[in-house]
Amino acid sequence: MLPDIQFLRPEVPVRINRVGAVGVKKLVEVERTGKRPIILISKFDVFVDLPEEMKGANLSRNFEAIDEVLEALTERPVKKIEDLCLKIAETLLNRHEYATKAEVKMDSELILKKRTPVTARKTQEVVKIIGEAVVWRNGGRRVFVGAEVVGVTACPCAQEMVKARVREKLRKMGFGDEDIDKILNAIPLASHNQRGRALIKIEVRDFTPNIDKLIEIAKKAMSGEIYEVLKREDELEVVWRAHLNPRFVEDCVRLMAKMVIEEFPDAPDDVIVFFRQENEESIHQHNVIAEKIATMGELRRELSSYERKV
Amino acid sequence: MLPDIQFLRPEVPVRINRVGAVGVKKLVEVERTGKRPIILISKFDVFVDLPEEMKGANLSRNFEAIDEVLEALTERPVKKIEDLCLKIAETLLNRHEYATKAEVKMDSELILKKRTPVTARKTQEVVKIIGEAVVWRNGGRRVFVGAEVVGVTACPCAQEMVKARVREKLRKMGFGDEDIDKILNAIPLASHNQRGRALIKIEVRDFTPNIDKLIEIAKKAMSGEIYEVLKREDELEVVWRAHLNPRFVEDCVRLMAKMVIEEFPDAPDDVIVFFRQENEESIHQHNVIAEKIATMGELRRELSSYERKV
Amino acid sequence: MLPDIQFLRPEVPVRINRVGAVGVKKLVEVERTGKRPIILISKFDVFVDLPEEMKGANLSRNFEAIDEVLEALTERPVKKIEDLCLKIAETLLNRHEYATKAEVKMDSELILKKRTPVTARKTQEVVKIIGEAVVWRNGGRRVFVGAEVVGVTACPCAQEMVKARVREKLRKMGFGDEDIDKILNAIPLASHNQRGRALIKIEVRDFTPNIDKLIEIAKKAMSGEIYEVLKREDELEVVWRAHLNPRFVEDCVRLMAKMVIEEFPDAPDDVIVFFRQENEESIHQHNVIAEKIATMGELRRELSSYERKV
Amino acid sequence: MLPDIQFLRPEVPVRINRVGAVGVKKLVEVERTGKRPIILISKFDVFVDLPEEMKGANLSRNFEAIDEVLEALTERPVKKIEDLCLKIAETLLNRHEYATKAEVKMDSELILKKRTPVTARKTQEVVKIIGEAVVWRNGGRRVFVGAEVVGVTACPCAQEMVKARVREKLRKMGFGDEDIDKILNAIPLASHNQRGRALIKIEVRDFTPNIDKLIEIAKKAMSGEIYEVLKREDELEVVWRAHLNPRFVEDCVRLMAKMVIEEFPDAPDDVIVFFRQENEESIHQHNVIAEKIATMGELRRELSSYERKV
Repeated sequence: MLPDIQFLRPEVPVRINRVGAVGVKKLVEVERTGKRPIILISKFDVFVDLPEEMKGANLSRNFEAIDEVLEALTERPVKKIEDLCLKIAETLLNRHEYATKAEVKMDSELILKKRTPVTARKTQEVVKIIGEAVVWRNGGRRVFVGAEVVGVTACPCAQEMVKARVREKLRKMGFGDEDIDKILNAIPLASHNQRGRALIKIEVRDFTPNIDKLIEIAKKAMSGEIYEVLKREDELEVVWRAHLNPRFVEDCVRLMAKMVIEEFPDAPDDVIVFFRQENEESIHQHNVIAEKIATMGELRRELSSYERKV
Repeated sequence: MLPDIQFLRPEVPVRINRVGAVGVKKLVEVERTGKRPIILISKFDVFVDLPEEMKGANLSRNFEAIDEVLEALTERPVKKIEDLCLKIAETLLNRHEYATKAEVKMDSELILKKRTPVTARKTQEVVKIIGEAVVWRNGGRRVFVGAEVVGVTACPCAQEMVKARVREKLRKMGFGDEDIDKILNAIPLASHNQRGRALIKIEVRDFTPNIDKLIEIAKKAMSGEIYEVLKREDELEVVWRAHLNPRFVEDCVRLMAKMVIEEFPDAPDDVIVFFRQENEESIHQHNVIAEKIATMGELRRELSSYERKV
Repeated sequence: MLPDIQFLRPEVPVRINRVGAVGVKKLVEVERTGKRPIILISKFDVFVDLPEEMKGANLSRNFEAIDEVLEALTERPVKKIEDLCLKIAETLLNRHEYATKAEVKMDSELILKKRTPVTARKTQEVVKIIGEAVVWRNGGRRVFVGAEVVGVTACPCAQEMVKARVREKLRKMGFGDEDIDKILNAIPLASHNQRGRALIKIEVRDFTPNIDKLIEIAKKAMSGEIYEVLKREDELEVVWRAHLNPRFVEDCVRLMAKMVIEEFPDAPDDVIVFFRQENEESIHQHNVIAEKIATMGELRRELSSYERKV
Repeated sequence: MLPDIQFLRPEVPVRINRVGAVGVKKLVEVERTGKRPIILISKFDVFVDLPEEMKGANLSRNFEAIDEVLEALTERPVKKIEDLCLKIAETLLNRHEYATKAEVKMDSELILKKRTPVTARKTQEVVKIIGEAVVWRNGGRRVFVGAEVVGVTACPCAQEMVKARVREKLRKMGFGDEDIDKILNAIPLASHNQRGRALIKIEVRDFTPNIDKLIEIAKKAMSGEIYEVLKREDELEVVWRAHLNPRFVEDCVRLMAKMVIEEFPDAPDDVIVFFRQENEESIHQHNVIAEKIATMGELRRELSSYERKV
């Protein structure tokens, strides 16, 4: 029989918080009611903890846990990626009898079909969807689902400064203030704009967030949607709209927060939600980010206290 | 005068936990007693929080804060990267009068000179050094220093199985058990081995961890050091040693923990320390990791309870 | 009507060799006889050249060309990725009437199912498949198909040095030369081993290379296959075999060359073939590579002149 | 004595075009007249070819070649990175007596100091500098030097369409054509803009291209320079200028070509030059590129034939 040195006592017997594998790629089939199932290449990270008296975790069990769950799903495809992550985490805990905790993270590129805004041409878009599950031996669990989308953001500050200088120039050219206001209201003035990435993750607990809704919120929070194909009329529209809608990273995060509150009224107050906006600044070599983490209850209080004041 | 719309009231007045820039590259000069200063290209991430009544953080202040500190250092180069991060975080807090918190992360490639193990040829090695500082308006602070190094790890489990099968083969060939033991003790048997990356971060609080020591501990925790140049005698030695010293990711993390306890006896019990080992498995497409986070006090208790038992 | 400034005369009227888009992701459905079609997320790079009298290429036509071809395929899925690339390149040339050349590159992760070597467990593996097509207005064309796979490589040189030192040790322990030879032949000695990536690209011209065959050749050329799941018996086998089969990057490239000659006897002499092996050295921070480019005719001559000598 | 199996006859004796190491990082000191030398972390790729009768290249010689040259330079720092690459390539050829060719590629991040356009604040910028050298046993050689810089590019096409629609709107608002022209000339209208990367590589042969000049040309060819710190007045200026200066990727490549001809009148006609512009489109998920390769003679003819026509 082959020796199994994972079960030996380690030389330095301290507890390990996490041991596992990162970047395990698997085909996952997700069912959609009334449509062909989606097939995803998903990347999994899977971890357990390890008590001080064991030298090693038997990591092949991690892959078996993923595979067992995925195989079982071939008969009956999963409906939600968060259920898939939870099921894998539970199977991990079953197979690592010494662990007190199991964690699964999954992300996947999803290709969505959409149409361009003016000419309604078909085009495809890549979004990232995310599932996370942690389960504890004592029965606790924490599950998240999320999405990250790419859009365009235009800077409100630069545009406001351009406007001030344009106003001054128009005055010098002899235009009256009323005309200038009319002109400035009619024109999308220059600003710097760039690719942004909006991320939302929301806890799944006693309510079911719809991932399509998360994708929609993330897109709407930026200055505009982006497209792989744009006919000239579409391109004009995308640029025009984005410049009527300039937003800081802070604005994007706040708008996501507001829309999440509005769109998920049945989410319990203790559900945790996380927002992140990252902009690949066109006038800098660095990126700019904003992040917010809160419970739905906290968000609701922050927003309602504001509304009372107004 | 140019408009400053950051100070406007935002449409959705919720607090932002973090707003800032990531990937800001700067030259940093670090002083070394009795040697030429080291010049690093350092990558900074800098954040503050933002109250609900402000539309945007004035991000140019972040870069000014970094620059102000770095410029001030040209007269008197910094001695420790953790001091640099702390100083920048404090300057951020000064410049963002509305923020309650400022965060700075810095990492940098450092090229170290060393000699090969047998022929003592000069060679260079790249390690990553890390500094982190968070300061709160109320006077709180948390500062970390860290290092990540690359080494080789050989798997103890695969080697043990190879040994079992070799033992069997030698028996069939007619060797006696005593001879077999002698042979197996004399020979570095095959195992899978791979690049590993060991990371340690330790809190800086009422004691001063030496970063060279962290680098040394991280290297020693793996199966062996690696080198850019290896003469044939050196290569033999590196391979031989690594296979006499096979280690799981769990072993590497535990050995780092043990060495940190031994090497920093003056670190207070409430100092936090974090360890991570990642192996780029040569027999898999995925990587394997182990992580541990604990206070020095917890680590000391875990280890001493073990020693009492033994 | 919207202005179309691409057709303006450029300020600096020099010819552009390549203008286009990189990283366009699309769903591609590939038909397989008797099986469910495979759905791939493919990444396309598409280029045309541009004459000196035109300011810009109308890039939206590139995406339309891809989409037109992909849409046409939804009724009748493509059977070969090289045909897909060729069809897109031809459509590009049709749509850019001013271009003399159109280029398409495509790569895609493909997940293959396989079984572990001893326990025959099901597991999945990621390989990269590649298609390339260039078409010229004058009727010329050049089409390639390729594959890149990950495997394990063990170093023959380090192992040979380990063997020499083991031999010496066994002698000192009193073993005779005959016994030592028997022992050394029975034992997989240590060497450094690491993830390797083998790439083959072959021209498609008057013969049809099978992409599954390319994948198989690339795998066989390394010291061993790797697997995402390995039961203990499998892991032993993978490590054992790889160490009986140590190979330099040069060896891998040469073995691919030999197998390509043997497996594609009907490939014409003027077909170009390219090989590349990259090893992520476990004892260095850098990677090691070997590359060969030749026609099938040149390869055949190199190999036959050798065989005559032997 | 240790066995040296590289010198064995390979199993499959075909010639290898390239064998070597990629990603070797080294400290390099570059001398500047009248200033402190610059210290760079440079990444080297080094290759030789290998005849069919040798099993392996002795790769440790590659690192020795780099080190030998770098060590020799510590007494007398190199003045030009192209000389450094050439010197290393020649040393490689000396050390690999069986090779007919040796290749060296080097790139390095260089941090430059500059000032913002209005407030003249000090800031730092990262550019990439590149050196390449190939030397043949028969005395041939080919040496390149290059630079890649990041800037902002605004799209002329989208801006022109915005202008057409603005014109129409102003007409409907009752403005006369003369007023409209005045307004449109005074105002930087919206367009999409994004980070661009401009790359120039030029052959070094019987003339000495100045790398600072290449950096300057690459920057000027885009719509505008970018900065890590921008005070509000600076940001306004950067955005304003970029929108008065909209450019396609094709424009950037062509302007680089024109400026190279103008700035290097003493470059011989057979010197090869390569240009590449890549834009990280803010309204797409893909990037857009343009490339040109030509000799200086070809470029001169293309441009002069144009000027004759004009």
